[in-house]
Formats: sequence, C-alpha cells, structure tokens
Amino acid sequence: MTAFQEETATDEEIAAEAALYTPFTDAVRALVDVTIRTEVDPDEIRAAQVEIEAIVERLRKKQIPGSYGVRFRRDGTRGRNWGNTVMGLRNPIAPPLHIVNDGQGQAWSDFHLGAPYEGPPGLVHGGVVALVLDQVLGHAVSTSGRPGMTGTLTITYRQGTPLGDLRCEAWVDRREGIKTWGKGRILNAEGELTAEAEGIFILPRWARDLDALRAAAEATEAG
Amino acid sequence: MTAFQEETATDEEIAAEAALYTPFTDAVRALVDVTIRTEVDPDEIRAAQVEIEAIVERLRKKQIPGSYGVRFRRDGTRGRNWGNTVMGLRNPIAPPLHIVNDGQGQAWSDFHLGAPYEGPPGLVHGGVVALVLDQVLGHAVSTSGRPGMTGTLTITYRQGTPLGDLRCEAWVDRREGIKTWGKGRILNAEGELTAEAEGIFILPRWARDLDALRAAAEATEAG
Repeated sequence: MTAFQEETATDEEIAAEAALYTPFTDAVRALVDVTIRTEVDPDEIRAAQVEIEAIVERLRKKQIPGSYGVRFRRDGTRGRNWGNTVMGLRNPIAPPLHIVNDGQGQAWSDFHLGAPYEGPPGLVHGGVVALVLDQVLGHAVSTSGRPGMTGTLTITYRQGTPLGDLRCEAWVDRREGIKTWGKGRILNAEGELTAEAEGIFILPRWARDLDALRAAAEATEAG
Repeated sequence: MTAFQEETATDEEIAAEAALYTPFTDAVRALVDVTIRTEVDPDEIRAAQVEIEAIVERLRKKQIPGSYGVRFRRDGTRGRNWGNTVMGLRNPIAPPLHIVNDGQGQAWSDFHLGAPYEGPPGLVHGGVVALVLDQVLGHAVSTSGRPGMTGTLTITYRQGTPLGDLRCEAWVDRREGIKTWGKGRILNAEGELTAEAEGIFILPRWARDLDALRAAAEATEAG
C-alpha cells in the first residue's frame, strides 16, 4: 500500500511536470472517449491496439510500483493528488475537476462530462454523480480548516443529469464535536437542480490528538 | 442527447464486436494505468503523446456523434450498455465489473481496482465505492423483475477500502408500492466489511403504465 509521501520536488520542478503531463494525460483522455465512440474498420482497431500496446510497454519500463499516492510538503501544505480519480492531473479517468473554494467552507466546480461517464442513455451515471459530490463536499469540508474522512454520504436524485456542461456546489452546513455536515448539489447547463447530497465527515484521530495538544498548550499558556 | 436505441445486430455480430473491442479496450485500460505511474524520461512522454494523438485522429474519422447509449432488442431483453462507466466493455474507465445475479434479487461481483481508482493514498476513492455500490444495487433491483431508477443512495463508510481485489454484494431488501429498497456492501480481500449502502429505487412511469395495462388486461380477461 502506498503511504503518504513527502514532497521532494521544488515549485519549479512541479510546474515543469505539470506542463509535461497535462497535455499527455489529455491525449489519453481523448483516446478513452474515442475508444467508446469509434466506428472505423476492424483492421484499423486492431492496428491501433498493437500501437497502444507498444506505447504501454515503453512507458512501463520505469514506473511507480503501486498507485500515485498523495505527496505532502513538510510544512503541512496540501500536496499533490495527481492520481486522484476525480481531480488527478495525471489520471485520464478524472475529467479532471478544478475545484474552487473560499476557505470558509464553500467549494464549487464547473466541469464537463462526456461519453465515458454515461449510465442511462444520454445521462450521467448515478454513481458518477455520487463520485463528483463526494469529492466537492470533501473539498469544502477540508478547506474550511477542519479535515474529515467521509462517514456517510446520501445522494438524492431529483432528475436525470444530462451529459455535458455541469456545475457542482458544496458547503459546510454545521459542526458538532468531531462531525462536520456538508451539503451539496449538481446543476445542469440550465441551472436546474438534478441531485443533492449530504455527507457527514469525521475528524481523523491524528487531527483530534493535534486539537487536544493545542488545547493543552493554550491551557498551559493561560495558566 | 442519445436516446434508447434499437439493437439491430445479430448475436454473431455482437460476439464478433466483443472479440474485437475487448482486447482493444483492455490495451487502453493499461495505458490509463501507466499514464499515472510512468517515470520514463520527458522526451519519451512527449513522443508517446504525439503517437497517441495520431491514433485518436485516425479513430475519430468515423465515430458515433454522441455517447454510446444503450441498445435494446425489440423483444425487450436487456441491451448492450458497452459505454457504461462501471460495466462498459468499450469504456476504458470501467474496470469493468462483471456482475452475476440469481434473478431473485441478489447480485454480486468480484473485481480489481488499481491506481486509477485512488482517493486517499492506497485506498479506493470514496466516490468510486459509491459508484460500484450504485451499479450493483441497481443490478440486483432491475434483475429481480422490477426496474428502478435510483431515488436515494446512502453510503456508510466503515473503514478505508484498499486498492486491489474486492467484492461487492447487493440484494433486494423489501418493496412497497413503486419503491424497492436495495442493500449492499463492499468487502476487502480479507472478507472484511469496508462500506455499506442502502438505495431506494423508484419504478419508472413507463413501467407503472405497463403494470396498469397488465392489470386492466387481466381484469378484462377475468371478467
């Protein structure tokens, strides 16, 4: 299992990597899309397969043993989650979502979902709706200054979510002890509500210990 | 928007298509995985990108205008959902899941999730857990003889779900009017529970009309 890793790259190195891998991953995203949609002759499919297998073999010559993980800086600032299914710059499965937040518990993202995200004909897969809401709710909660692991997530489907341009909004609803309630919704291109979510996020044990240490330190200072 | 389409291919044609597209899509799945994990030199990444872009251009010469949709047979038997995000034979995003069912409301799947499905380091993305559960619950409900659209879906996360070999099980819990309750769970390679789900599936209006028509026909026959 890949553990949390320390980020060893400088800002310049990370920027150079992003410039290299962004267009590369976009090319693979386009290939994913056309793999579903192409109608060229069987011989052309077989020829493309042989070429893709050869590219895979070359790229596998040097690779990370497991998954990408998340690379954190020693100063505690949020690290790189470039392998993430929803946001990962290097993950062709990720649309990817670019999530904006106000640091006060609100987060939102405008994004586009095409053919690879289909469930019912012409509609976004209900599970993909849940996947996006989980990520944006988690982002709202974690950037509000209080990290949380998803405890429960409830999705209410109001109507089909059409493939195309979409928006997801999420916010921190309330807090109680180690629990934070996040809420969110998906809007279609006309701004109509298609799905809603409520999630309960639990403060991880390591953060609780940190909280206890801080409280003890403050009590000592006050004393 | 892609509508439901009629299946025009014969069984033999579908088998030939499956034999063509299965290894092709598997090659693209391997490329998705290595796109995240490769550490070869930048020049090799750039060369691969140029080749992939050329393949995409060739495959795009003839393609379906929108998404794949679902192709149904005129006799009403379930059609091909080869573009589906979770099960699609032609969708490189799909692991794909092969779901087994007993036709009585139970469904299950043994599957493997690698690097592209990562959320927290080494763990399956919480939203991917929801995506898999949504598909398997929906499958259990629809193959029980009563189709349903997901109304609500609640996921309870018990512990992190490790990347690797996993199992998902789902079953119909109960029915009441137009609602069917499905339940399900994810087990890790040691058989330990990692997440549970409950979903409420609503009988679509067209199926209700069908039910009403059948009841009327039966009443007429009985009379």
